[in-house]
Amino acid sequence: MAAPKMNEWLQKLAGFSSGSPGVTRLLYDGAWCDAHAWLSDRARSLGLVATPDALGNLLLHPPSARPGDLARPVLLIGSHLDTVANDGSIHGASGVLIGLLVAAELRASEALPVVAFASCGGEENRFGVESPGARGLLGLVEDQELDFACDSSGTSWRRALEQARARGCATPPGPSSRPCAPLFRPALVIETHVEQGPVLDTELFDLGLVESVAGCRRLSVKLTGETRRAGTTPMKLRRDALAAASAMALVAETLARQAGPEARAGAGYAIAKPGTMHEVPGACELGIEVRHGDHARLAELADAIGRRCRTIACERGIEIVLEESAGADPVAFPKKLVDAAEEQAKRLGIQALRMTSGASHDAAVFARNGAPALLLLSPSRRGVSHSPEEYTSAAQLEAARRFVSEFARWLTSER
Amino acid sequence: MAAPKMNEWLQKLAGFSSGSPGVTRLLYDGAWCDAHAWLSDRARSLGLVATPDALGNLLLHPPSARPGDLARPVLLIGSHLDTVANDGSIHGASGVLIGLLVAAELRASEALPVVAFASCGGEENRFGVESPGARGLLGLVEDQELDFACDSSGTSWRRALEQARARGCATPPGPSSRPCAPLFRPALVIETHVEQGPVLDTELFDLGLVESVAGCRRLSVKLTGETRRAGTTPMKLRRDALAAASAMALVAETLARQAGPEARAGAGYAIAKPGTMHEVPGACELGIEVRHGDHARLAELADAIGRRCRTIACERGIEIVLEESAGADPVAFPKKLVDAAEEQAKRLGIQALRMTSGASHDAAVFARNGAPALLLLSPSRRGVSHSPEEYTSAAQLEAARRFVSEFARWLTSER
Repeated sequence: MAAPKMNEWLQKLAGFSSGSPGVTRLLYDGAWCDAHAWLSDRARSLGLVATPDALGNLLLHPPSARPGDLARPVLLIGSHLDTVANDGSIHGASGVLIGLLVAAELRASEALPVVAFASCGGEENRFGVESPGARGLLGLVEDQELDFACDSSGTSWRRALEQARARGCATPPGPSSRPCAPLFRPALVIETHVEQGPVLDTELFDLGLVESVAGCRRLSVKLTGETRRAGTTPMKLRRDALAAASAMALVAETLARQAGPEARAGAGYAIAKPGTMHEVPGACELGIEVRHGDHARLAELADAIGRRCRTIACERGIEIVLEESAGADPVAFPKKLVDAAEEQAKRLGIQALRMTSGASHDAAVFARNGAPALLLLSPSRRGVSHSPEEYTSAAQLEAARRFVSEFARWLTSER
Repeated sequence: MAAPKMNEWLQKLAGFSSGSPGVTRLLYDGAWCDAHAWLSDRARSLGLVATPDALGNLLLHPPSARPGDLARPVLLIGSHLDTVANDGSIHGASGVLIGLLVAAELRASEALPVVAFASCGGEENRFGVESPGARGLLGLVEDQELDFACDSSGTSWRRALEQARARGCATPPGPSSRPCAPLFRPALVIETHVEQGPVLDTELFDLGLVESVAGCRRLSVKLTGETRRAGTTPMKLRRDALAAASAMALVAETLARQAGPEARAGAGYAIAKPGTMHEVPGACELGIEVRHGDHARLAELADAIGRRCRTIACERGIEIVLEESAGADPVAFPKKLVDAAEEQAKRLGIQALRMTSGASHDAAVFARNGAPALLLLSPSRRGVSHSPEEYTSAAQLEAARRFVSEFARWLTSER
């Protein structure tokens, strides 16, 4: 029963879009408000109550679970409702629907009420701020953020939120400096999302159990050699900034390959100046990103790449200015929870892989702020994401739904 | 006598500039016309006749040498009068002045008249066409070129030439499809220029005797891999176009280093797309220039680099489109002439180096079109060229003048 409904509803949600190709349902825009209202209707039709919070997060809960009652912890299940421009129709939306279906299925759970959430603000969102919805669900968004954060056309978060509030998608803000008060206290959060990479698809797994979200270090490297006419400058007299950058890009790649399957590093750009064919480039800007799920190994890898870059610059007579900007720290999810999830998957005959996620989702915000969380990933064909070509099969989504349903049943019966 | 006059006149010529910093004397502009007129005056003051041709090349010759008399070969000595924007004051101009001084000194030579030339169009010039002046001196410029070639503001070569003609800097065009008839037939051409590279300055030579002008092959490489989120794409699943380009840039450098001191190759740009730090670049455009003074070795080196690029692409699962555009072929100057020049330099105690030039000058056009030519280079401090910081010492310029004077005296007395 659930599987056909899930697919039908995914298509319905995909219809709430303000543009094409793909789905464009930016946070608080008309399509988003329509989807919000439709989702509330669906929840009510399944015997749940739909309650928005002051930021527009939508909570779908049994009548017995009272918004604002923080004394009674709940099991939160869901993901984000918004998309980026010309996005796929599955990631985020499928997590929201799995939450809705499982909350409806387990709406009788009294010991640990099951509450579905449709959060506002995916990993990339209209205002470019980190997981606004998840932070709102925890009561962590500051009032001033609403004015500072603006979308690409200059509309502030506050103004866009007010427009959505006028359509009934958010409650009035609270009086404190943190205007979004949490409505429920999560004992545990389960987020399901589509993998935004190719690992599960390539390795033929149906479900990813995320052990950690990779942390990131960014190396911005400015190289200065000497711009010279290429024809008249012998090789031994060149101070070629692009050749130095090339050596550094390859070193990042090589060291990451040697640092195990969870390590990632590579150059995203190497902008040579003056950038003509007939001149030895005297300057180059190189951007290297380094990622790892483990804090110490991330630092180790970033440091090793930085050291090798300096050595290459020195050997080539190139001046180097290397700025390391602090990306996010890695987030580890509770090992016991992942162990339990792995056992559950085995019992259900679902091929699951323990993995590091390179993308951060709401679950990481919960985990970082003391709410135990489990992040589940479904395969994405060829790793395509944020594109109309995003695809996860119905069978794979059903595996995720079935897993969450059974795992939530086990969690709620356990306690 | 000659040395102080040379320096004084170089400074005077530097004053004919339409902008700062440095010298801006674009072909046919006001400053160029003023320099043209001033140079004619100086020639007359030294007992020479100043005759422009239909393109504005200025020929400074003894009265006995009649313009249009192609039966009697002459010795042509000179270089180009124009500069690029914000150029140095020495290259080109010093070669013109050496021609003027030597033509004046040897104006009594009857057997082989000495004619100085100030050509229009240096190795880089207002209309972006190859050596317009030298081709004009040989009668090789086609009428239609005057309309096709335009400067950066859209002014055609013809229109700019007409403005200079109105100021007396060119004669009316001839009626044929080649509007600039040659005024003299060169038995031999000597061009002196400043090296636009660091070899002579680094190796402490006062004069370069050019054996050949390097030919060039340009490899435009388009690489297509797969754009993916960097965080979520494991190293082994990446098809990183910039990493492939980096490997290719280093291969070009390595193969050129192995191919001897006259070989040059390197990447001038590597434009990665999308070019953000958090995405594996799925596309990259790479530009590699390859140079060598020897035709066969140039082809060998370019082929080897191309082959290695294809191998790298294949190993990395990257699609490659490699277009080789025909740069100029190498030009060899007559070996006997270079041998004779080397002996002359030895006799004069001038430290001279036989070398390949990476930049093409008027001499290469003459050599390529059957007029025996000798190209002499003076050192440029740190190889700086086309910059206000271009610098060659007075002693080094005097060495070139003295060499040309003695070599021309020997040539004219020989015959």
